[in-house]
Amino acid sequence: MLRKNRLFTPGPTPLLPAAQFAEASFTAHHRTADFRNLFTRVLADMKEFIGTQNDVLVLACSGTGVMEAAVSNLTSPGDKILVLTAGKFGERWTALVEAYGCQVDTLSKPYGETFSLDEVRSRLTPDVRAVYVQATETSTGARHDVKGIAKLVRATGNDTLLVVDAITGLGTTHLDVDGWGVDIIIGGSQKALMIPPGLAYCAVSERAWQRMETTKSPRYYFDLRKERKSAAKGESAYTPATSLFAALGAALDYIRQLGAGNLGAGREDLVNNAELAAEMTRAGGLALGLKLFAPSSPAAAVTALEAPAGVDSGAIVKEFRESFNAVVANGQGEMKGKLFRMAHIGYYDYLDTIGALAALEHVLAHVTGKSVAFGSAVRAAQEVFARQTEAAGASR
Amino acid sequence: MLRKNRLFTPGPTPLLPAAQFAEASFTAHHRTADFRNLFTRVLADMKEFIGTQNDVLVLACSGTGVMEAAVSNLTSPGDKILVLTAGKFGERWTALVEAYGCQVDTLSKPYGETFSLDEVRSRLTPDVRAVYVQATETSTGARHDVKGIAKLVRATGNDTLLVVDAITGLGTTHLDVDGWGVDIIIGGSQKALMIPPGLAYCAVSERAWQRMETTKSPRYYFDLRKERKSAAKGESAYTPATSLFAALGAALDYIRQLGAGNLGAGREDLVNNAELAAEMTRAGGLALGLKLFAPSSPAAAVTALEAPAGVDSGAIVKEFRESFNAVVANGQGEMKGKLFRMAHIGYYDYLDTIGALAALEHVLAHVTGKSVAFGSAVRAAQEVFARQTEAAGASR
Repeated sequence: MLRKNRLFTPGPTPLLPAAQFAEASFTAHHRTADFRNLFTRVLADMKEFIGTQNDVLVLACSGTGVMEAAVSNLTSPGDKILVLTAGKFGERWTALVEAYGCQVDTLSKPYGETFSLDEVRSRLTPDVRAVYVQATETSTGARHDVKGIAKLVRATGNDTLLVVDAITGLGTTHLDVDGWGVDIIIGGSQKALMIPPGLAYCAVSERAWQRMETTKSPRYYFDLRKERKSAAKGESAYTPATSLFAALGAALDYIRQLGAGNLGAGREDLVNNAELAAEMTRAGGLALGLKLFAPSSPAAAVTALEAPAGVDSGAIVKEFRESFNAVVANGQGEMKGKLFRMAHIGYYDYLDTIGALAALEHVLAHVTGKSVAFGSAVRAAQEVFARQTEAAGASR
Repeated sequence: MLRKNRLFTPGPTPLLPAAQFAEASFTAHHRTADFRNLFTRVLADMKEFIGTQNDVLVLACSGTGVMEAAVSNLTSPGDKILVLTAGKFGERWTALVEAYGCQVDTLSKPYGETFSLDEVRSRLTPDVRAVYVQATETSTGARHDVKGIAKLVRATGNDTLLVVDAITGLGTTHLDVDGWGVDIIIGGSQKALMIPPGLAYCAVSERAWQRMETTKSPRYYFDLRKERKSAAKGESAYTPATSLFAALGAALDYIRQLGAGNLGAGREDLVNNAELAAEMTRAGGLALGLKLFAPSSPAAAVTALEAPAGVDSGAIVKEFRESFNAVVANGQGEMKGKLFRMAHIGYYDYLDTIGALAALEHVLAHVTGKSVAFGSAVRAAQEVFARQTEAAGASR
């Protein structure tokens, strides 16, 4: 059969065709009214998409670049920083904070788990200048309790900052950035925004801007204050990735349309879509006898499933690719070979979800050499879908 | 008449349609054999395009990002650094080196001029750890003598590093990176490579890699050693801008075709093309009574022309846009309002060059309110073209 290129990965995610066309056909120079209008509209739309009154900035880099910005702009060497880590991306916070010479206190949990609020509270001493955490840990499929953590940080009553990597979290999980008091939240273009990688963004609180008045870590390309100043004039500080901005504009138009004219409602539709796809996928995986890797707090962004006993998850990834030209993600860091991950971020629909589970049935049969009851994962997912959509219908 | 979007700016430059199509249609995940093949081929092709045996890395950022990498990777706080500056981008080197706490010695010349080699020699004391310069100063249209400067740096006999911002220089001026001993040379995607902004690249010498073993400035996203290690496995350290990589692959195919199968020859064709377009443009400008801004060492990348007495160059930029939907660049930094710049980088041809000059005739008539002999700039350019192409024909 034909084998379309299928991305079941937590980024890049399937592309919105309208955004691909916009990307290809954009030719304007970045210091023109045409681009300034696009730039200004995109930044305003991004505020609505994120659901924040804070300044939003979009930079030409991967998500890691804006993670670095959140460290280099908010810290001075020697600052005491609390990092909450339970996976590969949490470890990236530690590496970044160490690279900038801060004194790091790491609250570390095993891959697949999350932090108890009591543990977090006990680390929030008054000298902690900032806390860094993920909303969803992409490497394990776990969701962290950003709301609870934010409440603890704000309850300290001092000016401790909270930085949240929501690169796979934005558009897949509920986040009330302003209500909870998140100081910097970070996202990337190749996730729920449905466009290729190359842009990353953040929303920055007034508290964070104030901190930047006195912090001393070096920064230049990622100098957020310079970007903010330029953005006020409708420009980026350095040459922006213009074609990706055009793609982003088209994607935001689509998300607004999803939300019947409202980008925040469109984002919530995406969150609900991801939640349903994730629930269907979990049900399908369990029906095949697989174990969820992060059962206590599974994220809607990505579902991590353990490989069956005796099977290297790399074989599952390989078979998905070879038989279906479909990309699922292997475990990362210490979990490589032990689990595989199927994402539900952005432009995924019912057919994608069902198709991925049906393919998983063939893949498992192949890699285990055992018979699989074809349709069993699909059926479990359909039952979730029918129950949820009927429930939604009933509640209308 | 129809007014196509015309970019006569030193980046973004006119896009290669085949690259736009490649950008729009690329959907592969970046941790797959498909992308690794593209990535590996693009890096190898980039070496051939640049004409170097040094490692080439391509990052997701603007050119300024890789300029920062060339500072943060090669320096430690307190290092003595020599910056050669004669324009806005030279000033960016100073700002960057200061941001990283180095001790900066600045050899500064007025906008539009360049450095004498005697002046450079006198600053090359043994304690200078690195020299930073532009190949072509985009803000003024001046070309600096990289060959002569490199000779001086190498003649010191110590391990002083030479870093060259060739963002508008690569593909518009002859640069023998390895022969001259340039330690880091920097370019951007939206210049001679004919694709949108969002990628920047550099070639890094063995001397530079050795320096990185001991330098202490903080870096993470722009850590070149980490990128090199990933590149050896066919991957980037962080998520690459995949669609722009696909565009870059298509542009390199086109440049190889220009060079009848050889990317270096294709680059030299682009250099010759830019040289001819620049000479035509200078002749056209002079025929209209305009003054060249950098007459002693004009770059082929961009021609800077002074606005006529009493005319703000912004009015010229505006009239180009309003009457022809064409973008020429204003002066930058202290030269804003005093000059305008027409570029010849990358995908420019005879019709672009002639059309831009014909449009300039209308624009000047409009902004000065004086009559202009229509066709005079065009004719001067045609005479250059006929002379040069006949000369090329005669020498075959």
